[in-house]
Amino acid sequence: MFRSARFPVLALYLVGFLSTSVCAAPQPVHSYDPAGRSKKGHVGRRGAKYWQNGTANCGTQAPLANPAPYSNIWGGLSDVEAAGAVEWLFQQAELNLTVSESSSEWDNSILLVELMIPNKTDVLAYIDRREPAPARYAHVVLNVRATENPHYADILVGPLPVQNGTTKWVPLEYTYTRKTQGRVRNLDADSLQQRTFVNNLGAEIQDITLGLWNMTVMGLANDTMFIWAVDPVGQDDGRVTVWFTFIKISDKGWDTNSIMPAGLYFVADLTGRDSSKWSVNGWLYNDIFYNTIEDFRAAVNTPGFEKLPFNIDGEWDSVDHQGSTPPQDTRTPPAAIAPGGDRYSVDVVQKYIEWMDFSFYVGFSRDTGMALYDIKYKGERVLYELGLQEALAHYAGNDPIQSGTAYLDSFYGFGPYAFELVQGYDCPSYATYLNSSFYVSETTHTHVNSICLFEFDADYPMARHSTADNVMVSKNIYFTIRSVSTIGNYDYMFSYSFYMDGSINVEVRASGYIQGAFYANNEDYGFHIHDALSGSMHDHVLNIKADFDIAGTANTVRTISNVATQETYPWSFNKTRNTMKLSRADITNEDHSRFNWAANGLTQVVIANKNSTNKFGEARGYRVAPLSGTAHLTVEDSSSIANAANWANHDVQITRQHDTEPRSAHAYNSQDVADPVIDFNAFFNSESLDQEDLVMWFNLGMHHVPHTGDLPNTVFTAAHSGIQFTPHNYLLGDPSKETVNMVRLTYEGGSAVVERYGQSEGDTCPLEYSPVEGYLEGYIGDVVIRKYPFNPNEPFIQTNGIGG
Amino acid sequence: MFRSARFPVLALYLVGFLSTSVCAAPQPVHSYDPAGRSKKGHVGRRGAKYWQNGTANCGTQAPLANPAPYSNIWGGLSDVEAAGAVEWLFQQAELNLTVSESSSEWDNSILLVELMIPNKTDVLAYIDRREPAPARYAHVVLNVRATENPHYADILVGPLPVQNGTTKWVPLEYTYTRKTQGRVRNLDADSLQQRTFVNNLGAEIQDITLGLWNMTVMGLANDTMFIWAVDPVGQDDGRVTVWFTFIKISDKGWDTNSIMPAGLYFVADLTGRDSSKWSVNGWLYNDIFYNTIEDFRAAVNTPGFEKLPFNIDGEWDSVDHQGSTPPQDTRTPPAAIAPGGDRYSVDVVQKYIEWMDFSFYVGFSRDTGMALYDIKYKGERVLYELGLQEALAHYAGNDPIQSGTAYLDSFYGFGPYAFELVQGYDCPSYATYLNSSFYVSETTHTHVNSICLFEFDADYPMARHSTADNVMVSKNIYFTIRSVSTIGNYDYMFSYSFYMDGSINVEVRASGYIQGAFYANNEDYGFHIHDALSGSMHDHVLNIKADFDIAGTANTVRTISNVATQETYPWSFNKTRNTMKLSRADITNEDHSRFNWAANGLTQVVIANKNSTNKFGEARGYRVAPLSGTAHLTVEDSSSIANAANWANHDVQITRQHDTEPRSAHAYNSQDVADPVIDFNAFFNSESLDQEDLVMWFNLGMHHVPHTGDLPNTVFTAAHSGIQFTPHNYLLGDPSKETVNMVRLTYEGGSAVVERYGQSEGDTCPLEYSPVEGYLEGYIGDVVIRKYPFNPNEPFIQTNGIGG
Repeated sequence: MFRSARFPVLALYLVGFLSTSVCAAPQPVHSYDPAGRSKKGHVGRRGAKYWQNGTANCGTQAPLANPAPYSNIWGGLSDVEAAGAVEWLFQQAELNLTVSESSSEWDNSILLVELMIPNKTDVLAYIDRREPAPARYAHVVLNVRATENPHYADILVGPLPVQNGTTKWVPLEYTYTRKTQGRVRNLDADSLQQRTFVNNLGAEIQDITLGLWNMTVMGLANDTMFIWAVDPVGQDDGRVTVWFTFIKISDKGWDTNSIMPAGLYFVADLTGRDSSKWSVNGWLYNDIFYNTIEDFRAAVNTPGFEKLPFNIDGEWDSVDHQGSTPPQDTRTPPAAIAPGGDRYSVDVVQKYIEWMDFSFYVGFSRDTGMALYDIKYKGERVLYELGLQEALAHYAGNDPIQSGTAYLDSFYGFGPYAFELVQGYDCPSYATYLNSSFYVSETTHTHVNSICLFEFDADYPMARHSTADNVMVSKNIYFTIRSVSTIGNYDYMFSYSFYMDGSINVEVRASGYIQGAFYANNEDYGFHIHDALSGSMHDHVLNIKADFDIAGTANTVRTISNVATQETYPWSFNKTRNTMKLSRADITNEDHSRFNWAANGLTQVVIANKNSTNKFGEARGYRVAPLSGTAHLTVEDSSSIANAANWANHDVQITRQHDTEPRSAHAYNSQDVADPVIDFNAFFNSESLDQEDLVMWFNLGMHHVPHTGDLPNTVFTAAHSGIQFTPHNYLLGDPSKETVNMVRLTYEGGSAVVERYGQSEGDTCPLEYSPVEGYLEGYIGDVVIRKYPFNPNEPFIQTNGIGG
Repeated sequence: MFRSARFPVLALYLVGFLSTSVCAAPQPVHSYDPAGRSKKGHVGRRGAKYWQNGTANCGTQAPLANPAPYSNIWGGLSDVEAAGAVEWLFQQAELNLTVSESSSEWDNSILLVELMIPNKTDVLAYIDRREPAPARYAHVVLNVRATENPHYADILVGPLPVQNGTTKWVPLEYTYTRKTQGRVRNLDADSLQQRTFVNNLGAEIQDITLGLWNMTVMGLANDTMFIWAVDPVGQDDGRVTVWFTFIKISDKGWDTNSIMPAGLYFVADLTGRDSSKWSVNGWLYNDIFYNTIEDFRAAVNTPGFEKLPFNIDGEWDSVDHQGSTPPQDTRTPPAAIAPGGDRYSVDVVQKYIEWMDFSFYVGFSRDTGMALYDIKYKGERVLYELGLQEALAHYAGNDPIQSGTAYLDSFYGFGPYAFELVQGYDCPSYATYLNSSFYVSETTHTHVNSICLFEFDADYPMARHSTADNVMVSKNIYFTIRSVSTIGNYDYMFSYSFYMDGSINVEVRASGYIQGAFYANNEDYGFHIHDALSGSMHDHVLNIKADFDIAGTANTVRTISNVATQETYPWSFNKTRNTMKLSRADITNEDHSRFNWAANGLTQVVIANKNSTNKFGEARGYRVAPLSGTAHLTVEDSSSIANAANWANHDVQITRQHDTEPRSAHAYNSQDVADPVIDFNAFFNSESLDQEDLVMWFNLGMHHVPHTGDLPNTVFTAAHSGIQFTPHNYLLGDPSKETVNMVRLTYEGGSAVVERYGQSEGDTCPLEYSPVEGYLEGYIGDVVIRKYPFNPNEPFIQTNGIGG
């Protein structure tokens, strides 16, 4: 299926990804540093914001370059490894591969070549017990289309780098719950043929589209509409039945397709590869179903036929500045600065980061984007892995498109859509940036500056206390790593933040355009928010994997609940008191490990190591708690996604760690929703969770019922979900007292004695502050390195616009 | 009862407040500007942080002084009004008042003279319909102790300013649900006698205290312990029975009393005013109850008696910097600056503030501290009043002190404990400050700089969207007003924040010392967190009043719920689909207006005006939703607080607005918990809520089970609760598009065209940035103006240390 549904304007890019054409018109070759951060024109950026040559603590300093203690085994394939694997694959005759650029819908091609994340078991042997590093394999996805039954094939190629004789390919199956040799049917194989089919239909009914809207869609350059398909497609009864709808193309080039539905729908049976056997099985307009186009045409031409209004462009759907500028808004606003430079270290090549007492590695994958590995605090691992697994956006409505839409966004991939960040806007002006790369059609694309790192001074302190004699306050400086993935209409901002009290926050915010419904008789599914637009209700549910290792891998999930109780005490003179107490319970088995956050926040959830107790006998642990609203899926046993997102039904789910269960979802679960490649339910098989290696899978999200404030874009302030990990009886006190960024004032009759903990008053830093962010013209888009044919000494490098 | 329980070290201050003595030893008279912000030594403060003479938008600018559209009728009494009322009161022979400084426990004195907040009905007539301003009255609290039945008496004095012949006093009763002429018994009248009683007891058992701990409490200057009473005191059966415990005084002058319990408890019957009739009715140690001190002494002297360990001071309870400074922590951290100066206006005298399209007035009262009034957005009122009502901290435990403790903190007052804020720590270095004042013993105390105002650039943008062609991002600059009240061991930070999308956040964070339990057999009530300390479980519940007026006062609360459903559609080929839809309901009566936030966030709550619909027919409103964790009380029908905090039992409660129900609680509810002055339950009497003037009373809070990370202080990052108000179909689009602080980058083959919306690149501001906050020595404490005798031309002004 062509995925216009999820990213209409980015369709060009998708076409590239789905390996029909790279659109790689020659462009100037740019200088490019694969280590990132020093792309030409970028070096001076931070300095341009402000610079100084002041005294004492002041002075610009780039991050220290503390080397990673071991190489980043989650960090992706090297150019040589990837190019070698691609070349080797083309040599395997049985795969019958065609280079993407010249492949047709009846050719096999390579969709993906990236690092296979090694098994945790093997990694721990390497990093904790100094055994040899795990062998490196490429995770390859083949698009097998030279067959009547097109499918995606996940295979492993390795060990890498390629050595003839030892390198092999095997089906990748051990990490999937469905044992079909890593193969899943490809409902998308004939997307170009499908597009032709629906465009021809558009031509056939141009009398109707002109009559309803004075617009046409025929597959021509001057089309004023296009035809959008539901995702996932209908898969019942062995048939592939797809609902389509008509979308007005923005007159102004805006990315407004998701809010420009025109209210006419049709359903096609697209089963099989022979388009001559495809059929259109019905039409819907204004809640009236028509069996044939003839029936609908007759209705349209009947006097009194009710033509519904439709949406047109205007200020309401423009992302630009608009309306009356508020008082004083044109004056320079406050901003964060880092006058002392960066107080963290970054091994850019290894993507290894140290901030205060935290350290971690950054990994990146096509499906899920950024992930963090081996997160240590004060030298001890607290999380082996922390990252996104999948994002579901499940809609509902009275029309077949909204009712059927349930995006599983890793199909599109969070990696390819993690674009360059806008300095000073997406991240503070002084942030440090890392690049991210992904594989497309025998090339590696790099998004420069697509991951940012920064420290920030919160608008509130970490701790304070006033007494009759003195007041103490400590600053709350925290550290964030962030990426933003724009999956079609929506921009997801992922932030992982680290605090001086040892806590870690995981947050997602959403902005961009909503997907709206055509407004017609659908008050039960949304608000009427524009002329012919309903703010289609939908649930966002995003699954996060948190593989905790608290004082080792033997951990237990403990719950501590407040309960109302009636008690009589030795001292209560035989009176019963209405009071409360704690109820403690361990979750010791997978039979009981799927649950929701308790009403009224009455239950605390702590991952602890019962065998690692502090001197007072309490188990050391980390508490996991909602930081702001979270959500699990409203819909029960969804007709749209069946078993493809069974991770979405609870807030929190805990499994025993297995190398065979590294991820809760598969990018192609949408291709067979009843029997998906990874069915999360299959992870639960009554295993013990008592002092075992545990993985917590929790959900972020929101129930989104858009209102007028979501136009033109949803705002990050409201669309926010987060989880907080907090040390829990983990140390003997609050570690934030270790900072010197605190002050104690002792009152002495009309003035105060100031304890600054070694900080010197009176130092100043002359700064040249630029209120307006400079050099944004340097925002360039993708950097592409061709991997086949590949010449390591003279790689083909170019830049493309985003999506190019 | 002496309130050592809630603020042991601040007890001196309390003594002053309870009008026994002002401790006003002569001190140097300071220059003082009642308009605030320009206290001597403060003028240069902001400038010292950085200054500039740059180009374009740069340049320090103090807040504009846009005058308030009308005078602040919630802003407090003038010096002349207050002094006049006090002088007039002393002239009323029937009140039989004695000046506080010379009053004994058998004299009547004045506890409070402050503005009686005028009725909303009268205010709206004035500010909306230009009728005369409401007459001004003083709310006076008398401490009537020249009687066998000591009581507090709430009265009104006015109109003000005093005019002989027209000014009268009347009992204040109309705003209370209990109709007892504004009188409530005073269980605290004999606090000095009570202290003597328990100190004598301490002397009597010094053999035991020396034996158990080598410490004594006898009421002497060299006491090493003190005796702490439960709050509220036992009030069953008409008897006043009070549990006491022994607390180790810090060797180091630290404010650690709340974590230094020693584990010995006794109960006294203190009924009546004749201490010769008081008795001690039992002792408790290590969960064993002894009827008499002789029994306990015999047990202690029996061989094999188990002496429990107790807590001693150390690093663990010190608020100072301690431990290993983390890597790079000593270098200057990031900070927020405001290089363009303040982009808001403040009428300092009227405490009227305008920021962007918001405006509001600030009020301040002894009981509840800061409140906001007449909050307008784009010229229309959205909230008439927004502020704290009461804070409950309800403990539980196996010992009588923890089990009985349920602080209702307005007894102590949030006003008097809203101390000066620490610049650069409690608020950004560039914040604007306001003063707050409160009445104590014929003087007005002023806390300079105790309210701060600032703009802030969030670490994330307001909105963004990337397309194949361009990326747009807008900054998220918000505005916050903040105060911090330290009620004994705990510091509550209240922040009200305003956003460019029209939303308003209400947040409280808590820091300071926990109140711990002596560790003995109490694993059911907390964790073992130090040698002899249990982190006593407790619920914080804080009630906030939000008097919404959306497009007028006729409003309705609407709920919009996501519900799982099975539906068949005209297009679904007779198949039933598992999906979801919206269920809408109005809360039309007080019989149904007390509820909790829905599980899984499935229900949205919107205050709307059904008669004010937008052009699409949707009612304009504001949504109210949790921003982060909230809490209502775990305990059901609490034995400790009975009916004194019936507002704490649900998350959200909505009533019809009445001038007779301005507040959900009374400062003296703790004095008669079974039959409190204000019983919130009485607000609910089946009135219609359908298009009426509505008040929402919601709760912030947390269920706090302290762990080692709460030592020495609870941290603000974890102890956070908030509610968010968001415009909901209120405007036709997102108003944050009105800012120019956004950027759009359009990709053009390896570079970008930058749309800056009028901002000029290249401007710079030379700044002198001081990494270390300067002038903190200017932190001074209370400014006191004597009101009786009062000389307006030469007021008595002095500064005291905090609590002086």
